[in-house]
Amino acid sequence: MKILFIGDVVGSPGRSMVQEYVKRLKKQYKPTLTVINGENAAAGKGITEKIYKSFLDSGAQAITLGNHAWANRDVFEFIDSAKWMVRPANYPEGTPGKGMVFVQINQIEVAVINLMGRTFLPANDCPFKKADELIAEAEKRTPYIFVDFHAEATSEKVAMGWYLDGRVTAMVGTHTHIQTADERVLPKGTAYITDVGMTGPYDGILGVEREPVIHRFLTNLPARFEVASGREQLSGVVIDVNPKTGQATSIKRLLINEDHPYLEL
Amino acid sequence: MKILFIGDVVGSPGRSMVQEYVKRLKKQYKPTLTVINGENAAAGKGITEKIYKSFLDSGAQAITLGNHAWANRDVFEFIDSAKWMVRPANYPEGTPGKGMVFVQINQIEVAVINLMGRTFLPANDCPFKKADELIAEAEKRTPYIFVDFHAEATSEKVAMGWYLDGRVTAMVGTHTHIQTADERVLPKGTAYITDVGMTGPYDGILGVEREPVIHRFLTNLPARFEVASGREQLSGVVIDVNPKTGQATSIKRLLINEDHPYLEL
Amino acid sequence: MKILFIGDVVGSPGRSMVQEYVKRLKKQYKPTLTVINGENAAAGKGITEKIYKSFLDSGAQAITLGNHAWANRDVFEFIDSAKWMVRPANYPEGTPGKGMVFVQINQIEVAVINLMGRTFLPANDCPFKKADELIAEAEKRTPYIFVDFHAEATSEKVAMGWYLDGRVTAMVGTHTHIQTADERVLPKGTAYITDVGMTGPYDGILGVEREPVIHRFLTNLPARFEVASGREQLSGVVIDVNPKTGQATSIKRLLINEDHPYLEL
Amino acid sequence: MKILFIGDVVGSPGRSMVQEYVKRLKKQYKPTLTVINGENAAAGKGITEKIYKSFLDSGAQAITLGNHAWANRDVFEFIDSAKWMVRPANYPEGTPGKGMVFVQINQIEVAVINLMGRTFLPANDCPFKKADELIAEAEKRTPYIFVDFHAEATSEKVAMGWYLDGRVTAMVGTHTHIQTADERVLPKGTAYITDVGMTGPYDGILGVEREPVIHRFLTNLPARFEVASGREQLSGVVIDVNPKTGQATSIKRLLINEDHPYLEL
Ligand SMILES: [Fe+2]
Ligand SMILES: [Fe+2]
Ligand SMILES: [Fe+2]
Ligand SMILES: [Fe+2]
Ligand SMILES: [Fe+2]
Ligand SMILES: [Fe+2]
Ligand SMILES: [Fe+2]
Ligand SMILES: [Fe+2]
Repeated sequence: MKILFIGDVVGSPGRSMVQEYVKRLKKQYKPTLTVINGENAAAGKGITEKIYKSFLDSGAQAITLGNHAWANRDVFEFIDSAKWMVRPANYPEGTPGKGMVFVQINQIEVAVINLMGRTFLPANDCPFKKADELIAEAEKRTPYIFVDFHAEATSEKVAMGWYLDGRVTAMVGTHTHIQTADERVLPKGTAYITDVGMTGPYDGILGVEREPVIHRFLTNLPARFEVASGREQLSGVVIDVNPKTGQATSIKRLLINEDHPYLEL
Repeated sequence: MKILFIGDVVGSPGRSMVQEYVKRLKKQYKPTLTVINGENAAAGKGITEKIYKSFLDSGAQAITLGNHAWANRDVFEFIDSAKWMVRPANYPEGTPGKGMVFVQINQIEVAVINLMGRTFLPANDCPFKKADELIAEAEKRTPYIFVDFHAEATSEKVAMGWYLDGRVTAMVGTHTHIQTADERVLPKGTAYITDVGMTGPYDGILGVEREPVIHRFLTNLPARFEVASGREQLSGVVIDVNPKTGQATSIKRLLINEDHPYLEL
Repeated sequence: MKILFIGDVVGSPGRSMVQEYVKRLKKQYKPTLTVINGENAAAGKGITEKIYKSFLDSGAQAITLGNHAWANRDVFEFIDSAKWMVRPANYPEGTPGKGMVFVQINQIEVAVINLMGRTFLPANDCPFKKADELIAEAEKRTPYIFVDFHAEATSEKVAMGWYLDGRVTAMVGTHTHIQTADERVLPKGTAYITDVGMTGPYDGILGVEREPVIHRFLTNLPARFEVASGREQLSGVVIDVNPKTGQATSIKRLLINEDHPYLEL
Repeated sequence: MKILFIGDVVGSPGRSMVQEYVKRLKKQYKPTLTVINGENAAAGKGITEKIYKSFLDSGAQAITLGNHAWANRDVFEFIDSAKWMVRPANYPEGTPGKGMVFVQINQIEVAVINLMGRTFLPANDCPFKKADELIAEAEKRTPYIFVDFHAEATSEKVAMGWYLDGRVTAMVGTHTHIQTADERVLPKGTAYITDVGMTGPYDGILGVEREPVIHRFLTNLPARFEVASGREQLSGVVIDVNPKTGQATSIKRLLINEDHPYLEL
């Protein structure tokens, strides 16, 4: 049993990579579950219903989000009816949308959880305590629990990985838009990576045009950031799961760009 | 011509990895220059003169630092006489130590620069402008310029990489203690990686014991952090340089731990 | 009916001002309730049992705290038995101590609540929601509710004031150590001030010696901060309460220092 | 000799208070120099040329700014030709506008300096070092130096006050929009106040409508902030200066609102 996860999809370059590769990756890896982080899918920030549906059409069964979930205000119109959209669960009670969904694939059910860190990010409810709560609920139904922890600080992400070790199938980090090389299966069976990285422009700065970002660091003046054009990349992970225990047996990084071309098997 | 760089060495576990592997790595890669980031070398924060000298004995020609440079107050006693120690250059004028050193190896001279980011870190002088200034000075003497950019935010690090592309041989990131998988040679010839990662405990949280870190995230109460014990890892990069131009031709990540054992060639 | 509140008492200069003036102020204003914020009472950070008891001896019936509550680790030894000590209520569940106490004075009972802001401060539970919860509990017993909101950002403090207007007798801000001049009774009867200010050294920087603080701003190097010596000040407020409704009718700032000498009536 | 300063003017409510009171205050106090902080004058953020000119028409001789200086992009069109507009001097070299202006009044010249803090604000150049530089320049021409230090943290503001004591006529703080009660003349003759406070809506949160601000604290969701309507206030200070020495002899707070009505002498 496998899980395929695609990291923060940024704007139309990211969406075009999803179009081009997700079906091929599914053909290659035959994942039971495919999840896409879509917090930057609409013009770099936020998501629309049309994009959400296109991700499902591309073969994803759940779409996770992050701090930019709310940037495109369309989200408030459809999030409550979007059955497979998961926003960070530790936003305060009463927040539109849901923080955990159960995806049914044949006889298998997988809990997909989205959490958000608080270091250098808004002060939501404690993601560690919220994780405890959701895992308690999920493990009544299934041993397969997948967590996208959207956070900035490496300390908070690594801490969450060890905190969840043995209690979830996998915890993958998102948000920094840079893939880390520390993927591993922790001692008690949880697949872990600090950040999956970003799917979108390969030559921008975290997906946006370089020039305004550099200008802003140099001047501290306001700048308008646009999604970069040019070459593209896809970032993801494939996790192997022991179907009997729900524990991960391996985690493999995916990075597709001109320097790391996709090789069809 | 090659450059070997070892990421943030944490405490005695990190120092023992330096002892064990740097000579072997030097034998294998035959780098012209070896640089070690030592900001966490003494008990997890700071550096002592004894450790500084032991790093030189291990085969490094320059030691870079970061925000923790000053944590062990011994540093103020020896930093001005430590010829091969480089602290972030964009600390304010008058700060003890120096931000750039020129290492002479046979007929070759390499400028080693240390800079520090400002996002989520102290408000030092602008690292971008300081880079301009130091590069102007360095390129009068040599085409070989190596930059350790010690910073938290991926945006600031990627921005710096592109800002320096074609102007320095390599810019490697440090500070987050997690190795990133985005190493590449940028279009104009600068080797780049967002973070080289940490050399020290493999099973801690950024090098320190897990339990107090998790406790702190759960409680917001003060905690004492100690360097973790147990298995160890080494993180580094090897950069290939065109000796005629000073441009990088490749950058390769090094990650040595029980899951990625070192294989002597 | 009156409430006397004394802002953040810093170190022995602050404690000596409490010794010297609280009894005189009580004689002058005859408050039903006297509350002291003691988060900085022990050497500038934290509080000891001896100091806690000395504040009660000085005439206070409740001692509030803040982010520095935990700095002197003695607090963990006595906080659970200190009946009149109130730490920020929105620290996570399971934190030692309590966030609300009921003080009985003759036939009257006053709820004393301590809350902490989250802007530029640790990510505790939501102080607004925690306020709702505690007020619901308190108003079953008494119409007299006093809130010390320990917070940095003026936006969060003013927002809390308006959020609580008509629901509590008074909300006074603490933490910035500088008294604000915006005391007022809000339209629905809640006495409000953004910050009561600090009780301690008059010529330091927020109560600590000036030289190391200025040095740190100039250098970004670590510095040791000691409580300043020399002239002293006391900062407080006196709130007039309509005993029938629990609503405030006035709030008056107290500031005692060489430039504003105390005039016995 | 007197200086009148009006704190952060917010939107049209703030501008109407300027219209209504600045001429009356000038008549009453007969200041040699009048300065207005205009960083929030245009719809709550930024300033337009028309507003800048209206402030001069109201009787101000210099307009200071702050972190919101750039919010209305019109500013880039006219800042370089606006002779009496002062933006924070410690923005990086090359920033449009100027950080110090010399105002000539009869035979007297006053230097007006604007600086910005770095704690919880963008990482500009060091305001302490920039102050040294500008004071060195100013004192060649005049003993009258007025500083608006736009900053968030009380520690940074108090530190600047003591740092400048005896070297400038006055340092007034702006930015938090709440007037502090700590106005004093420091021992070496510099008039000081941590924050002058805001000129604009009296019943908003720092000048904006309450409801979206509270909603944002409760939900962490994005919100649109509009300048509040209703009752208004003006915040300012009047500083008395010894014309022979340039030292301040007194500083008096001005606060005009329904609870503190203006009383014509
Ligand atoms: Fe993202
Ligand atoms: Fe994000
Ligand atoms: Fe480090
Ligand atoms: Fe660091
Ligand atoms: Fe305090
Ligand atoms: Fe505090
Ligand atoms: Fe302002
Ligand atoms: Fe401001």
